[in-house]
Formats: sequence, structure tokens, C-alpha cells
Amino acid sequence: GTNPFWTTKPNYSFFTNKHTLFTVSSSLTHSLTFPQMASTEETPIRFGILGCAEIARKLSRAIALAPNADLYAVASRTIEKAKAFASSNGFPSHAKIYGSYDSLLDDPEIDVVYIPLPTSLHLHWAVLAAKKKKHILLEKPVALNASEFDTIVEACESNGVQLMDGTMWMHHPRTAAMREFLSDSNRFGQLKTVHTIFTFAADPDFLKNDIRVKPDLDALGALGDAGWYCIRSILWTANYELPKKAVAMPGAVFNDHGVIIACGASLHWEDGKVATFQCSFLSNMAMDITAVGSKGTLHVNDFVIPYQEHEAHFSAATESWFNELVTGWVPKPSKHIIAADLPQETRMVCEFSNLVRAIKKGSKPEKHWPTISRKTQLVIDAVKASVDKGFEPVEVGN
Amino acid sequence: GTNPFWTTKPNYSFFTNKHTLFTVSSSLTHSLTFPQMASTEETPIRFGILGCAEIARKLSRAIALAPNADLYAVASRTIEKAKAFASSNGFPSHAKIYGSYDSLLDDPEIDVVYIPLPTSLHLHWAVLAAKKKKHILLEKPVALNASEFDTIVEACESNGVQLMDGTMWMHHPRTAAMREFLSDSNRFGQLKTVHTIFTFAADPDFLKNDIRVKPDLDALGALGDAGWYCIRSILWTANYELPKKAVAMPGAVFNDHGVIIACGASLHWEDGKVATFQCSFLSNMAMDITAVGSKGTLHVNDFVIPYQEHEAHFSAATESWFNELVTGWVPKPSKHIIAADLPQETRMVCEFSNLVRAIKKGSKPEKHWPTISRKTQLVIDAVKASVDKGFEPVEVGN
Repeated sequence: GTNPFWTTKPNYSFFTNKHTLFTVSSSLTHSLTFPQMASTEETPIRFGILGCAEIARKLSRAIALAPNADLYAVASRTIEKAKAFASSNGFPSHAKIYGSYDSLLDDPEIDVVYIPLPTSLHLHWAVLAAKKKKHILLEKPVALNASEFDTIVEACESNGVQLMDGTMWMHHPRTAAMREFLSDSNRFGQLKTVHTIFTFAADPDFLKNDIRVKPDLDALGALGDAGWYCIRSILWTANYELPKKAVAMPGAVFNDHGVIIACGASLHWEDGKVATFQCSFLSNMAMDITAVGSKGTLHVNDFVIPYQEHEAHFSAATESWFNELVTGWVPKPSKHIIAADLPQETRMVCEFSNLVRAIKKGSKPEKHWPTISRKTQLVIDAVKASVDKGFEPVEVGN
Repeated sequence: GTNPFWTTKPNYSFFTNKHTLFTVSSSLTHSLTFPQMASTEETPIRFGILGCAEIARKLSRAIALAPNADLYAVASRTIEKAKAFASSNGFPSHAKIYGSYDSLLDDPEIDVVYIPLPTSLHLHWAVLAAKKKKHILLEKPVALNASEFDTIVEACESNGVQLMDGTMWMHHPRTAAMREFLSDSNRFGQLKTVHTIFTFAADPDFLKNDIRVKPDLDALGALGDAGWYCIRSILWTANYELPKKAVAMPGAVFNDHGVIIACGASLHWEDGKVATFQCSFLSNMAMDITAVGSKGTLHVNDFVIPYQEHEAHFSAATESWFNELVTGWVPKPSKHIIAADLPQETRMVCEFSNLVRAIKKGSKPEKHWPTISRKTQLVIDAVKASVDKGFEPVEVGN
């Protein structure tokens, strides 16, 4: 099961050397500076995990592999379940095991809580965690709607804690390399249109029992899950400029409880940019970003989870044209291969831990991360409203 | 300029051998049988070209390379222009040069006319050609609307001549290989969603002077040109089942004369299938088909004009899923490389010539080709109507 590339926490020299395998523009290095900022003498940031969700297994490994983080505690509603989770997910012998979420939040040694709970529980537990002065790594969708999320943000701000959502692909070095391409006015130019897809064919058990199809747990269904990634990637491509309008597409599919299990939408900006996306639990896996600018084209087909951990690809084309008889392309698109020094979720943990460490030394929490979480949620809300209004255009809030 | 792969007409053994480089399902072999059907003893089918459009250069080469076709005649509105075209495009010494379209149509030796004229002239010249008993290879868009096209079809049917549009990629062996994948219920399953793009960044001269931006010549603009390919590829993916509804997307761009130079739309079927497309003269080149089924995913990024002539690629994935910790894909998509025995436009000429030869021997014209032309035009008409109605949903005609 576990990828053979990384089975133990690397030492600093390992990834200080490795991170030079890819190059990024200077404006992007803020997300890549953890090897330099960290020091082996400093105490790792202590993570506690609320609940034993399937995704928490992946995050446990990510924390274990992060040089500046400590896989410190896990809580479940029963101590037996928490113990079983810790023992099967590589928790160190010193790890704390809690039989309730409250008791984990009361542990003063814990710096960060990772919250992979069902979305309907985010408001309660994130606000409580903030009040307990825990920095928060919050799974997506961050809330049931932007209003709820604003309450979480307020709690984090008033308690001086960092908030970041768990969108792992943001932290892959490929993402920085693609951003460099998209930001280059000579290579990509002005964004004209972007199409994103995240679909997977869930099995019957998922479609019946997963929290993501339950109206009381994850009422946003496929839109809040797969759609989160589509919308985030569109906003990322558009440099986080919010669209003015969202129009859901007829053909959305609902389960017996009225939860969306497949839908699509188009997003529209004032300058004429158009984005479209499709998210679904009913189609074979696809994870595309196709961004077309006035001068360039970007293709990536595994943006959420790269095909493999050790490297990731994308295709970039600039000023593509035809040969003289229009029988071929000149130039052809180029394939870019980006080596990954660490799993993307470990990079996320490292980045988050660095922010927490800086706050411990007196810095303010970084507003970038909750800002893009909120924008993503605002677009989700608009698409959901458009679906509910029979696919009418809906203004995106701000 | 000319691709070095093919500079002279191949003999039959050349491509009888070569066509076994790819395999297709038995249902598709009708488009691949020309090496067997043809015989070196038979007279090649004689092509005449109406006008000296840029695209006619490519077709001249295609006809010259086709073993069962003869690059027989060209007409322009002045004989000087026709002479210059013939001499710079490899016409044989016996070729006929005409100073008017009418005189070419009056040549009883000509079997086929290729009509690359501006769309507004298609109705007149295609109907006249049919009356002169010429088989017709008609550039896209086939007409300004489906009603006009129906008049052309009636003229062809009443005169017993074959009609086919000039959508070259239909004839590439990759297209047959992709169809085989899409038709496989185990590998692709049921089509759920498809997104297609054809964009290119036209230069200022094109945007000012090309026939495709002139309201009196090609009033459908980018929708009739690049959009034709998008819509055809969507219909092809959907096995030519017409959608019920078309909804153009806000953000369409018009030139000063009101001609569409960029637009997008979504298409909707009764079973919930959704297609989206973007076509534009204002974005860097992109030519994507992304089709997602219940079991499989297809990606092709150069469907209109392959990157190079001698081979073409596509990516196919079946029952893609995650590894245990959701850190990679199992299985990964597979890349398929299809060798091309001849340029796709030469295959089109060969296929058309075979149909003409069969008609000369008593067969009826093949209705498949005008049927899919008409369906493509019907969807274009619906998208255009939706644009004109301010992006309201429009029922697709039938």
C-alpha cells in the first residue's frame, strides 16, 4: 500500500538537496522555503487528528514524513478506535490516544489539529479548536456555506491561529511550475478559457454509505468534494479573481436524498473569461485542468492526485501554429516533468508547520490560505444556488 | 512546407501493407477497405477544385497522393489565378485549367468537385454541381443553416451523387481506434460527459480579412469554422445521437460586424449526458476531446490536425482508481500510438473516390456522410440561435 519512495522521515539534507530538482520563479519560493526555514534543533510542530476518517490515514503518513512535524495525537469517539488507528498508521510510541475530540483539544502540547470530520461538523469543531488556540488544517469543503466558514475564520482570527484547507495539490512543486507558466505573459498570455474535471466512479457501497452522499453529513455531495477541486483549480488558474456569475448545467444528478452526485457549471468573469467544470461520483476517474490563454495552452490530467508520487507531468504550448500546409503543429507542445522531493500532502504539512512556527515567534497568521478557501466556498455556494434555482445564473458573492 | 513523409503517390502495395499497422473493430472496416476495393487497372476518380482557397492547396496534395484519385482540374474566376494555383500545387501536366466555376462543372470528364468556397456560396455551387452530376466534397460548415443544407442534399439525392463534408480527422486511423475504445462497454462504458475545444490565435490580418470573419461570406464565424469540429467531435463521441438542447455560454465574442469570433456552449441529452465546447479565433491553439464514460476516459489533444502526419496519439483509461493511500493511480492511463499510412485528407479522398467508384458500378450514394453533416449543422444552428437569444436554451432541430 504505502509508496516505496518514502517510508521514513527524511533528514534535512535529503530534501534540501532534492528541492533543487525543479526550478520556480522567485515570486513562488515562499511555498518552497521550509528546508531553509526549518532547523533540526527546533521542536517539531505537534499535530493532533480529530477522528479516524479514511483520509486521515494519508495525512498520518504525511505528518510522519514531514521533518518539522510530529504525529502526536489522535482522537476518536471511542478510545479503542483511536488506538487501532494509531497502531495501524505508524504513530510513534509517544503518541497520545484520546477517546473524545474534546480531550484532544484540551491537550496543551498540541499545536495543530487536522479536522477531516464530515462537513456538517466543521463549524462546531473548528470554532472550538480555535478557541483552544489550536492552528487548524481543515478538510474540504471547509464548511456547508461561506457564512459558516466566515464564523470559523472569525474564530481563528480572534484567537490568532492559522487556518488552511487540505487541498494537497496546491503544495506540489508541479503546481508552482504550472503557475510560473500561467503567469508568463510571453508564454501563456491572458487567460481566455479553462475547463476542469474531477470525476471518479464510486462503488455501490460509497454511493450508499459514504459521508459524501449523506444530506446530514456532507450536504454538498459531489459538488463539495470533487467539485471543490474543480473550482479551486479554476480560481487558481484565474489567479484567484472571483467570477461574477455561476450557471449550473442541466443534467445534474441527485441521489434519493437530494444530494448532488454529479454536476457541472460554467463560471463567467466580466472580462469575458469563461470556465467550465464537471464533477461526478458516476464517471471514470479524470482530473483535468485545460487552460487556454491568448498565447499558450496548459494541460494536466492528474492535477488532484498525480499518477505517481515521485514525479508529475504537465504539457505546455506557446504560440502553437500550423506548418505551411496545415498538416501538423509548429511548435508542438512540450512535456514538463517535475520531480517531487516529498509527497504533496507532506509538503502541505511542512508548509503549515512553518507558518505555525513563525506565529510562535511572533508573526501574524497568513491570510492567503483562508482567503482562497473562502473564495472556493463562495463559488460552490453560487453553483449550488444555481442548481437549486433550476440552473438559473447566480451572482457569486464576495 | 510539404511533409517529407509523402511526396509522391504511393503504389497499392505500399498502403495495402501499411494499413495493417493499426487494428480496428469489424464494424469500422468500411472506411478502411479502399486498398482492397481499388485496383490499379481502374481509372482514377477525377477531381476538379472550385476556387483557389488556401485549404485547396492541402487538398491538391491529398488528391495527388491518393492512389485512386486524379488531380484533374482547377477553376478560378480568372484563368491566370487558376494557372498559378495549378503550377504551384503539383497539378499534373494533363490537368485542366478553367477561368470560371461554370466551365469546370461543364467538363464531362470530371467525377468529383471539391468546394472550398465561402459558406454563403455553398448553396448555389453545390446545387449546380449536383445538377451537373458531379459528386461533391464540400468544405465545412456545409451551409449557412440546415435548411440550406437540406436543399443541397435534395439536389444530390435527386441527381444520384455522393455528398461528403471535408472533416478530415474523421478519416484518420486514430479516429477508428478511438471509436473502438468508446464503443467498448468494458473499457469505456456509457458516455457521461465530453468536452471539446478547438481554438487558435488568429493574426490581425486574419481577424480583419479572412473570409471566416466576414458576415457576407462566412456568417457563422468561429462557430462555423472551429466550432464545426467541436460539435462534430461531440456528436461522434455520442455516436451521432443528437442532443435535445443547446445552451450558448455568456462571454461569446463578436467582431465589429457581429460575427462570432469566440464562443462556447453546453449540449444536453435526455439521458443526462452533457457536452461542453469552446471555439475561438482568439486563444492559443488547442484541439481537445475529453470524453468520460462510466468505465473509461479518453483524451486526445490534437484531434483536428495531429501534431505530425506519420503517427497520432491518444490516451485511454479504464476503471482508473487510487492506490491504497490515495497517493497515485492504479491503473494509469495508457498511451496509444497509431501509425498513419497516409495523410488523413488523402484517406478522405480515397474513401470518397471509392464511394464514387461504387456508384459508377450501380451502388446508391452512402447516406452516412450527409446525415452526420446535417446533424452537425443542426447543432450549430441551435447554438447560433441560443447566442442570438441571449444565451437562452434552444431545442436542437431534427
